[in-house]
Order: sequence, then structure tokens, then C-alpha cells
Amino acid sequence: MKILSTVLFISLSFTAFSQTKLNVNGQRIESRIIELAKFGKDVNGRGYRIAFTKGDIEARVWYMSLMKKAALVVRIDYAGNIIGQRKGKNPSLKPIAFGSHLDMVPDGGDYDGCVGSIGALEIIEVLNENNITTKHPLELIIFSNEEGGTIGSMAMAGHLSPEGLKQKSQSGLTMAEGIKAIGGNPDSIQSSIRKKGDIKAFFELHIEQGGILEKENLQIGVVEGIVGIVHWEVTVEGFANHAGTTPMNMRQDALLAASKFIIAVNEEINSVPGKQVGTIGKIAAMPGAYNVIPGKVILGLEIRDLSSQKIEQLFLKIQKRAAAIANNSKTKISFLRQPNASRPALTDKTLQQKINASAKALGFTTKLMQSGAGHDAQEIALIAPVAMIFVPSVGGISHSPKEFSKAVDMANGANVLLQAILQLDKE
Amino acid sequence: MKILSTVLFISLSFTAFSQTKLNVNGQRIESRIIELAKFGKDVNGRGYRIAFTKGDIEARVWYMSLMKKAALVVRIDYAGNIIGQRKGKNPSLKPIAFGSHLDMVPDGGDYDGCVGSIGALEIIEVLNENNITTKHPLELIIFSNEEGGTIGSMAMAGHLSPEGLKQKSQSGLTMAEGIKAIGGNPDSIQSSIRKKGDIKAFFELHIEQGGILEKENLQIGVVEGIVGIVHWEVTVEGFANHAGTTPMNMRQDALLAASKFIIAVNEEINSVPGKQVGTIGKIAAMPGAYNVIPGKVILGLEIRDLSSQKIEQLFLKIQKRAAAIANNSKTKISFLRQPNASRPALTDKTLQQKINASAKALGFTTKLMQSGAGHDAQEIALIAPVAMIFVPSVGGISHSPKEFSKAVDMANGANVLLQAILQLDKE
Repeated sequence: MKILSTVLFISLSFTAFSQTKLNVNGQRIESRIIELAKFGKDVNGRGYRIAFTKGDIEARVWYMSLMKKAALVVRIDYAGNIIGQRKGKNPSLKPIAFGSHLDMVPDGGDYDGCVGSIGALEIIEVLNENNITTKHPLELIIFSNEEGGTIGSMAMAGHLSPEGLKQKSQSGLTMAEGIKAIGGNPDSIQSSIRKKGDIKAFFELHIEQGGILEKENLQIGVVEGIVGIVHWEVTVEGFANHAGTTPMNMRQDALLAASKFIIAVNEEINSVPGKQVGTIGKIAAMPGAYNVIPGKVILGLEIRDLSSQKIEQLFLKIQKRAAAIANNSKTKISFLRQPNASRPALTDKTLQQKINASAKALGFTTKLMQSGAGHDAQEIALIAPVAMIFVPSVGGISHSPKEFSKAVDMANGANVLLQAILQLDKE
Repeated sequence: MKILSTVLFISLSFTAFSQTKLNVNGQRIESRIIELAKFGKDVNGRGYRIAFTKGDIEARVWYMSLMKKAALVVRIDYAGNIIGQRKGKNPSLKPIAFGSHLDMVPDGGDYDGCVGSIGALEIIEVLNENNITTKHPLELIIFSNEEGGTIGSMAMAGHLSPEGLKQKSQSGLTMAEGIKAIGGNPDSIQSSIRKKGDIKAFFELHIEQGGILEKENLQIGVVEGIVGIVHWEVTVEGFANHAGTTPMNMRQDALLAASKFIIAVNEEINSVPGKQVGTIGKIAAMPGAYNVIPGKVILGLEIRDLSSQKIEQLFLKIQKRAAAIANNSKTKISFLRQPNASRPALTDKTLQQKINASAKALGFTTKLMQSGAGHDAQEIALIAPVAMIFVPSVGGISHSPKEFSKAVDMANGANVLLQAILQLDKE
């Protein structure tokens, strides 16, 4: 397979793409990933680069020094996003933007956000080393507090509300306090807004965070969109009673009904073709003792898909199943939709094609796939065409210290990003 | 049905039982139940007569004053049990004992324990009012801290360990401190032991705490035994992963497997004839977030039956089902037996027959049934023949402020207790 790839690479490098001789430095990417991982550790030496904390701030300082060494003009916008600019031959053209984030979830891994951030910097390095000036200006963007709710990109897209700024972040600071701590200015947050059409395109390189590419032995994921997410709190009400004195046929066991519901959700999500996912990740049974039949169970239901309509259709089917289960088990099942739903964001078809063509030209196997996780690109899709490149996650593990991507895969992704940017620049 | 009962009553009252003209005072029983209910309320006016607390102590003082008024010789044994003695015609005979407990669970009801305690006192009142002296001495026993682990009866039966005395009770005091607070002497707890054979028989009148008598429109439950109870902590181990990026067919969802297990437990318990019950009353899923597939679920499994062998047979079947579920869901399911198992206690067949005959003679419908809940009689069964009389619980509700039994049912139960004692006394 590798030999075949190389052959393909050689045969194509002299035809469609004149600049495929460019190659990112895989060793530099990996050594910078390792260096970045040192910032933000908890007392047990585990990853703790929560946005707005000491580790996050130190990583940003380190990263900005690398940007400056790479001759970027660096600034922090009012939302705390780091923006590094590189002039193009034609200053009147809109900038091509790319980047990711440096912050992580508590006990997170060293690749989520980092691969896209270090990969973006690598693009600049390679262009510098090859004395290439693009026609379009370039912008390397590191968004603030991605893991805490895509705060920086939300601000840039113009819909971070004053209420949102007052929310507590995982650092303990409010979003406003956190933004101030990293050099932003929450009082003038509106000044960080970029108007629709200001940016020509935004690319984000990222680890897959799932196991599809690895399982199917593929190198590059071309993201067709970022799923929408809806949450419901589901309450199953039965009747709490003595587990010793209540015969089996006289029970209204809320946990037994909840178990049937959990299986029904799984069946309904699997009942139609597609990539939708549905999860019950939370459960509480009350009163919660060995010797009491649960009278009440509260569940957390999540459905994700690229189509909002499909999410709603699946929910309708789940509601029907719930009604039947409630009826048969003498319980009541009710749903409370949570206010934090995120709408699906589709990536730009032209950009998808550019990524796919660049990957193929480099000899990589590709797959059109959805992103099951949220990303800054989801927010930026509101103001610019966006695209995402996925590279394999070993074991499909993410948001965990076990998160890992191979150096070769990171380099492949960065090479695809580089070629896609250059192809877009030709227009 | 009622007319038929009355006819039966009249026809029998002049044959088998010479003393069926005796009748307890149903109004007195009910008014004393209401008076007792005033002791031990929390700040919201809900039942809080936890053993060793102020409400428990006040109720005991009130009850002992009634015992003394009824000419009983009252003492508190070293385990805090209240014992009221009434002389018999033949002091060399072993005493016939009966009674129950005054303490309650937090937020409990006014009938559990109370019906047996007030009913026992009513026996003494009726004998006094009718100038009857039994051949055997009588003992009215109110056991200490029944709800907190049948502590008083366990001490009387001789197997309350020094470690047991150090355990915290729900009052916040250790068992030893609590026993001291109600007038016992934990340092000499051995002195409260009654030797096997010291007591001729022990009777306990109690509310059913289940809904069988009410559902089948029956008046008296003749208890054939008190079930054994075994608890297992069940751990289901899958793999926690991102709920957005992990496709449905690549999951190791511990909660989905746990749901199948909960249903399998229900199916297995129902798969054989009998009165066995099995309950999953506790569940925790980790990490417990909308957007993470549960990697680990911990459940509490309880099985109760009159036969230890049957409990073990059911558990074997449940283990087999668990192995199949684990295999199909790529999870691991393991069981940890808890150390607090209680062995089944059978009541005495001769005493059962006396209760049944007494009830029938009084015109009551009866049912041989098991007690799904633990009782002091379970402990006393280790040192004496025991028997229990159940009266209906409205709605089968227990350990709840909604717990209720009708005055007529309480009076019926007390009349059956009275006749059973008198029949035994004739021997």
C-alpha cells in the first residue's frame, strides 16, 4: 500500500499539482506536539490545559513566540483569539484562514486541537523555507476556549451574548474574566466580530476523535459537516416501594422501564441507515437503595446528526417507543429538551473537493465523513466557507490521556492542508 | 362475604374456642396509634422517630407509662429492649412473649412496628379488663432499633458483635452510644441474651407492608417465614468514549449492557414459580455526561426468598445471562457479594396453625404468606419458636408517610393475636 502511494505521488506530482514537491517536516510537527504537551499539567502530571488557566496562558505565549519567529504579524483579538497574519501578493484579496485551538478538556490528550495548531504553523514554516508568497493573505487563527463552548470562534462569528460572557468557565473564571486573563477585552467583544465574506475560507486540520479511519485503514478524512446536537432530560416515573414486600407483578419499577427505554433508543437510532448517533450517558435512580424499587429515574438523551430534520424524526420514533413502554410498565415517561442544542454545520463542497483532490494527488486514501464532535469551524461556517481535514486517532480514543495520532498521519494531514490552501490560492 | 363470616364466627365461637367472646377495643388501638404518631417529627412535620433520637426516647417513656398503668412489671434490658412482665398462674412455665418495635425509618409511617406494639399492649388491657390470668407468664417486648438492623433482638439472640456495637446508627450515635441513651448498658450487652428454650414462643403482629392481602381482599396473613436477603454489587465494564465521534457499531456501552442485564434479572426472577423477588435498586453510570458513552456502570442487585437454595439457584441463572450479555456487548460483568446477607427464618408450624385456626374461628379469611421484610421475629427464631400475624397495608405502601392500615384490620389482627396466645396457653 505504501509503495503504491509513493508511485501515485510521483506520477501525479508532475501533472495536476506543481507544488507537491513541497513537504512538511513531520519530525518538527511531532517534536512541537511533544513540547506543547508540557504546558498545563495537574498535580498528578495529567493533562490540565484548561482554557484561561496558567497552562493555557503559557502555551499561548510559547506558540506566539514561534509565530513571531516565523515572521507572522501576531495580535490577540478582543475575544482572546490569537491571529497571525502573513501578507499575500495581492493585499486586496480576502485572507485564507486556518488554525485550531490550544486548550484542552480536564484530563485530556495531547492531540485534540494541537495537531491543527502545530500543523497550521508548519504551513507557514514550509512556505517560508521555500520562499513562497501566496496571492491571498494568510491568517493563522488559534481560537480561545474551544473546549469550553467554542467561545473564541463564537465571538468571531458574532453570537457570543453578554449572558454567555457571564457564564463560569471550567477554570473557575467567568468567560469575561478568562478572556481578560489571556489578553482579550470582553468589554469590547463586538470588535472581534468578522463580517460574513471577510474571510475567503477557513480550514481546520484535526484528529478524527473516532475510530473509523483507523478501522478502515484510511489516511485522510474529508469532513462533510459537523453534526447538530440535541439533548433531552428524560424522566421515568414509577412508584418507589419496598423491594421485599412488593411482589414482582405489583411493581411500577422506574428502572426496569428505563432499561427498556435505553434499549429502544439504541434500536431506533440503528433502525435507519446513516451516521446518526444516539447516547444515554447519564442515569440516576431514586431513592437509590438495594432494598427500594426505584420510583423515579432521570436519564440524559443525546442525538447527533448532520440533519436537524433527521434528529427530530428519530426523536419522534423514540417518543412513540417511550409511550408504549410507559403504558406497559405503568410508568410515565416525559422529555425536557435542553436549551444548549447546536445546529448542524455543513462544510463547503468546493473546499471538500479541493481537500479530496489534494489528498488523492498525494497518494492518500480518503473518506467523506462527518464530524461527530463540535469544532470552531462550526461557528466560522456562519461567516465563511469552511472545511476540515481529519487524521486517524489510534484506537478512536479522544478526550483522554490515551489520545494518540502517529507522526506520519499528522504530517499527511498537514501536507493535505498545505496543498488545499495552495490550490485555493490559485483561484 | 361479610355475612358469611359473621355466621362462621357465631357457629364456631361456642365450639372450639371458649374465649372468643373476648374482644379487643379497636377504638383504643386506633387512638393510641394516633397518639404514638405524635412522637418524633422532623422540622417539616414528617415522621422521624429514628431509634435513639429524642422522638424515640419520648415514645418509649410514653409507652412504658401505659405498660405500668396496665400493671406490667417493666424493665429495660442491657440492649435497650423494653420488657413488661405479667405473672402467670404457674410461674415455673416459660413465658409466652409478644411485641414489636416503636422506632421508624426516616420519613416513615405510623403503622410499621406501631400496630404490633399497640396491639400487644391491647392484649394486656383485655386480659386485665376480663380478669384473666394465663397459666404461662406473659412478656411484652419492645425491641430497640429494629429499623437500624434489628439491634435489640439481635442482642437478645446473642449475636450482636462488639463490632456491631461500634457501627454508626442513623441517629449519628454508635449503636453502643444509642443503647446507652435509651437506658441500656452496652458494656454488659451479654446480659441481655436469652438462652434457647427460655421463651415458650414469640408472636409479632405487624402490617403486611405489601399489597397482597388488600389485592386479594383478605383479612389475616399467616406468616410462614421471613425471607433471606442477599445483595451483590454488579459492575459492568465497557469503554468510555466520545458520544459524537464513536459510531454506533464501535461502542462498548456499559449502560446499554446494564439495561439488558436489568431486564434479564427481571425475567429470571419471574421464570420460576414462587414468591421470590429480585430488585435492582441502585445504579451509577460513569463518567455520567450527556456526551460520553458510559464506560462503567455499578448496580445493586438484591434477591429475597424463603429458601437460601432458591436464591443461589436464581443467582446462577442470572450469572449465566450476564455472561451472555457481556459477550454480546463486548463488556465485562462481575459480581461482588455483600457481607450483610440475612438468612431466611421459618416460623413455627404449630404456631402458624394456631394463628390460622384462631383467625378462622373469628371468621376471618387468611393466607399463608412470607414476609418480604426483615423483622425482630427473624432474630428471635434463633432462640424460640416464632410466629407473625399480618394485617393489610392500604395500597401496599410502607416506609412512607402514606403508610396506612384500617382500624378494623388492626383490631382483627389483635384479636387473632389474643386468641392465638390463649390457645397456646392452654397447653
